[in-house]
Amino acid sequence: MSGVVYLVGAGPGAPDLLTLRAARLLAQADVVFHDALLHPETLALAEQAVKVAVGKRSGKLSAAQRFITKQLVDAARKHKTIVRLKGGDPMLFGRAQEEIDALNAAGVKVEIVPGISAAFAASAELQTSLTRRALSRSVLFATPREAEGSRKNDWARAAAAADTVALYMAAGEAFVVRDALLAQGVPASRPAVIVENAASAQVRVMVASVGTLPGVADSVGDGPALVLVGEVYADLAAAQNAAREFFFLQRTELA
Amino acid sequence: MSGVVYLVGAGPGAPDLLTLRAARLLAQADVVFHDALLHPETLALAEQAVKVAVGKRSGKLSAAQRFITKQLVDAARKHKTIVRLKGGDPMLFGRAQEEIDALNAAGVKVEIVPGISAAFAASAELQTSLTRRALSRSVLFATPREAEGSRKNDWARAAAAADTVALYMAAGEAFVVRDALLAQGVPASRPAVIVENAASAQVRVMVASVGTLPGVADSVGDGPALVLVGEVYADLAAAQNAAREFFFLQRTELA
Repeated sequence: MSGVVYLVGAGPGAPDLLTLRAARLLAQADVVFHDALLHPETLALAEQAVKVAVGKRSGKLSAAQRFITKQLVDAARKHKTIVRLKGGDPMLFGRAQEEIDALNAAGVKVEIVPGISAAFAASAELQTSLTRRALSRSVLFATPREAEGSRKNDWARAAAAADTVALYMAAGEAFVVRDALLAQGVPASRPAVIVENAASAQVRVMVASVGTLPGVADSVGDGPALVLVGEVYADLAAAQNAAREFFFLQRTELA
Repeated sequence: MSGVVYLVGAGPGAPDLLTLRAARLLAQADVVFHDALLHPETLALAEQAVKVAVGKRSGKLSAAQRFITKQLVDAARKHKTIVRLKGGDPMLFGRAQEEIDALNAAGVKVEIVPGISAAFAASAELQTSLTRRALSRSVLFATPREAEGSRKNDWARAAAAADTVALYMAAGEAFVVRDALLAQGVPASRPAVIVENAASAQVRVMVASVGTLPGVADSVGDGPALVLVGEVYADLAAAQNAAREFFFLQRTELA
């Protein structure tokens, strides 16, 4: 017997931003291998499944990955429907390829179910489109996190040439992001926004610019955060300035 | 009375790649304004709603957009739940900003519900991750379609610097894409894939390279098509070559 392993995107956090297909597969699943930080309501959809947390700890990536893959292959020998649930979309910063290739090599059938990636949830929250007529028609998704074998800050050249940029796992790297973008000729004044906990009630939006990113990033909490950069965010900065001016006016009148 | 307008992403085509939130809003909707080419099963979820098709014809964009916005504002004065349903995600090549701004200006409450964009469905279909350790950690989403006020082929500079590229509305512009990428120093041999009808039973995958894009794009049909470019697609090209070699071997043996 060999079951099917479904690599399923759990979306950006809110349980109702899961796809109908993902919900159906979770309900049918015999086993669910899931990342850390997934919403309990999402996991609860897998009523009859054994749930196995396979969150990776930084520093021991390769060993952990090999172990996850082995668990998936073993599960496929014993069960019919195996769900590997990942936050966001499996194919964008989801490290899916290693699992797909290993499962294919072991002769296990794999299917991928896409999910909503964080940048789309953040854009919905901000009511600011990633693309915009006459202002932005290219969007770069990148991460400033250094990985083995990667070319240092190569992402910044593409980011400087793109109209809008969504940087994943970037809030903790705000100095690196600022310096790399400035070195590529991006003006310090280009608007930036940090969105923490994009698709949840704990969402926080922090307006900044490329130059002020490190200072603003200081106030980011423990939640997953995304850094967005581009002229499409100019209106958000203007709205914040207007609010601040109004606040100062009020205070002056009171004094 | 003023209702809420929900700008909802319908996802890449398959009705079960809609989010649970989108499905719930469709079921509650009094009116649904929808683009052309949406799946009939998706529209059928809006059981009690009046459905209005608002597909735009090229050439008369601004007038049509103003009319759509007016219809949305009028509907919000009369109804509680208005869904504006767009293919893919509203915030990526969805022209959402004009509708959001106009609704805000008219004092109508707007909420955005993200959807799965075509590139994620195509990646799932290809079982090839957009990002990949040591090979790709930046992805550019762009369109080669010229718009009013845009800088000509500015997207190509960002595309040349990004590791993976997803080009929307690009299959009909294959010559432009090839020439713009080559002019930016992208090697003609860089792997490319065209995916037509990504999330449907009619999906077609055409393996190419930057240099051979125009020839391969010739066989694209009427369905929505996406052009993907990057070294992550090298394995697909290799697999196709192996299959072709096998075919030739078989034919030689038969001869």
